[in-house]
Amino acid sequence: MPSARPPAQSEKSLLAVLGGERRDPVPMWMMRQAGRYLPEYRELRTAKGSFLDLVYDADAAAEITLQPLNRFPELDAAILFSDILIVPFAIGQNLSFIAGEGPRLTPPLINAQLDQLTAYPARLDPIYETVRKVRAALDPAKTLIGFAGSPWTVASYMVAGQGSRDQADARRLAYADAGAFAELIQRIEAVTLDYLSGQIAAGAEALQLFDSWAGSLSPAQFEQWVIAPTARIVASLRTRYPGFPIIGFPKGAGGKLAAYARETGISALGLDETVDPLWAARELPDNLPLQGNLDPLALIAGGDLLDEAVKPILDAFADRPHIYNLGHGISQDTPIAHVERLISLVKGTK
Amino acid sequence: MPSARPPAQSEKSLLAVLGGERRDPVPMWMMRQAGRYLPEYRELRTAKGSFLDLVYDADAAAEITLQPLNRFPELDAAILFSDILIVPFAIGQNLSFIAGEGPRLTPPLINAQLDQLTAYPARLDPIYETVRKVRAALDPAKTLIGFAGSPWTVASYMVAGQGSRDQADARRLAYADAGAFAELIQRIEAVTLDYLSGQIAAGAEALQLFDSWAGSLSPAQFEQWVIAPTARIVASLRTRYPGFPIIGFPKGAGGKLAAYARETGISALGLDETVDPLWAARELPDNLPLQGNLDPLALIAGGDLLDEAVKPILDAFADRPHIYNLGHGISQDTPIAHVERLISLVKGTK
Repeated sequence: MPSARPPAQSEKSLLAVLGGERRDPVPMWMMRQAGRYLPEYRELRTAKGSFLDLVYDADAAAEITLQPLNRFPELDAAILFSDILIVPFAIGQNLSFIAGEGPRLTPPLINAQLDQLTAYPARLDPIYETVRKVRAALDPAKTLIGFAGSPWTVASYMVAGQGSRDQADARRLAYADAGAFAELIQRIEAVTLDYLSGQIAAGAEALQLFDSWAGSLSPAQFEQWVIAPTARIVASLRTRYPGFPIIGFPKGAGGKLAAYARETGISALGLDETVDPLWAARELPDNLPLQGNLDPLALIAGGDLLDEAVKPILDAFADRPHIYNLGHGISQDTPIAHVERLISLVKGTK
Repeated sequence: MPSARPPAQSEKSLLAVLGGERRDPVPMWMMRQAGRYLPEYRELRTAKGSFLDLVYDADAAAEITLQPLNRFPELDAAILFSDILIVPFAIGQNLSFIAGEGPRLTPPLINAQLDQLTAYPARLDPIYETVRKVRAALDPAKTLIGFAGSPWTVASYMVAGQGSRDQADARRLAYADAGAFAELIQRIEAVTLDYLSGQIAAGAEALQLFDSWAGSLSPAQFEQWVIAPTARIVASLRTRYPGFPIIGFPKGAGGKLAAYARETGISALGLDETVDPLWAARELPDNLPLQGNLDPLALIAGGDLLDEAVKPILDAFADRPHIYNLGHGISQDTPIAHVERLISLVKGTK
């Protein structure tokens, strides 16, 4: 099937692929590439305080965003150093990160009691400042990716007040009081739209929507709380910024990936590490750019195992637009040398 | 595609469907149907002590196994009241269930240090006694289902010593020391084969292999640690008991379900609640019996929402062998009246 999109004129490899072109070598970035596996990140973290302090210090956040590009100049994109829970913070929940336990949002919205919250849209402004600083400093050959969480995943944290194994609190609320849950989703959607528009205005050249918990929903709930809100966000952004490239990453969506790709209007589909690339290449639309999907644990393992894991993904997607990435965020205990090896394998510089 | 299996002669609806026949109304049972949502279970639990005490008291375990059939005579099968962690217990780990925290296995096999363990095969014997008691008391029109965990899922508990969000300890070990991990899988496989053979000898008429954490593996690991061990267990059991019906339930396998069904030799495939029934009906072999897949949270919700959730599953699988079930174990806070409603909807007695 020929691509429905006109060929992009961009000289930036990542944007070209998002526009439907194939590139060899393929463009590459890594989810959570600005983070704790980098000694220069850990040093800044020790000097500057908590994770949230870093996110809200635009100079520090910009520096962190650029760190992986400085260390690995072959990477094709910088992704904004921030967190998907900035949106609940702007909606009015208190946000903290407890060492070893992860994020806490208070009060939890176990009954979607949104009337208790006062919105603080100004809590988004420092993030735009980071985007502007990164864009000003970034090599023009590289692409700056902004991001947000998708409404379902953000809602699952807001309802439980924290991460949870199977997002049961949010799924139960969605069944027990679909009206209240719909209002919560709508509030998240509205702020997310502002947030992503603000990132674009500040210089983001592509966006990724992280739907980390898309995998826990029944088909009807997936349609209602993943596909529909994502489709509305994509359509609204495109009204403001026609053709803007948006990568959707519905982690764990499995057999529902094709419906997600077809119905949301995203430009490219991120695949988690559990997806068989041969299956994806066969079952997903030929002209759809795919991103992924090396197992981050294979990257930790390194050695022959890494070498053998990298190539089948390249081979499976050789005939279509492909962006190399991991299937999940890079782990903090990943050796730098393994990242270097991965890059040399993908970029053919070994 | 016509069924490759000869029509079964069985008068038991569940066995007929496992043999490739369609039945109307469809046979039905519920994962974890013998459990805490039943007041008669909670009463026995209070009287008799811990979960493990109940599992090892063959009279109590047989009574619990039969409780759901006594309360809901329309159910077509009893499933043995036991736990997948009986196998690690027989391999020599200590097993305890901590209220509110779930199971603990000690020592955890974080480095697959199997030489520290002494096998106790006699720890399986009381379970066979339960199977015999249930079979003797069970209505001959009903089917007795035995079960075990699949090696990968059992290994993930044995390595971490408990449940975990993404089975990272076991996945890391499998990458870091594939030889040691293969030995662990092989040990589990051997005991599981004995355990399932013992259940069949004691009177189980069908088996289910629970692979609760199949969804966390990369395609290569899924092939190596889910499909291959499952295929070996199925083949070995069929050597001893030709044609014996075995349901595979690789939770979270998503797009890898078709490969699992094709390569393991299982008789029927259990679908979790995240699988779109229309997708499954389209993508999975026509002659393959499917089991599932109502969202347990829809059963908790009840009302119109339950009514609307039940029928699309029946409709999607109307043209193939289908066993109605939930997509996951029934939750302890499920109202009995909702279960009654579900049964009446499936059995057409509303």
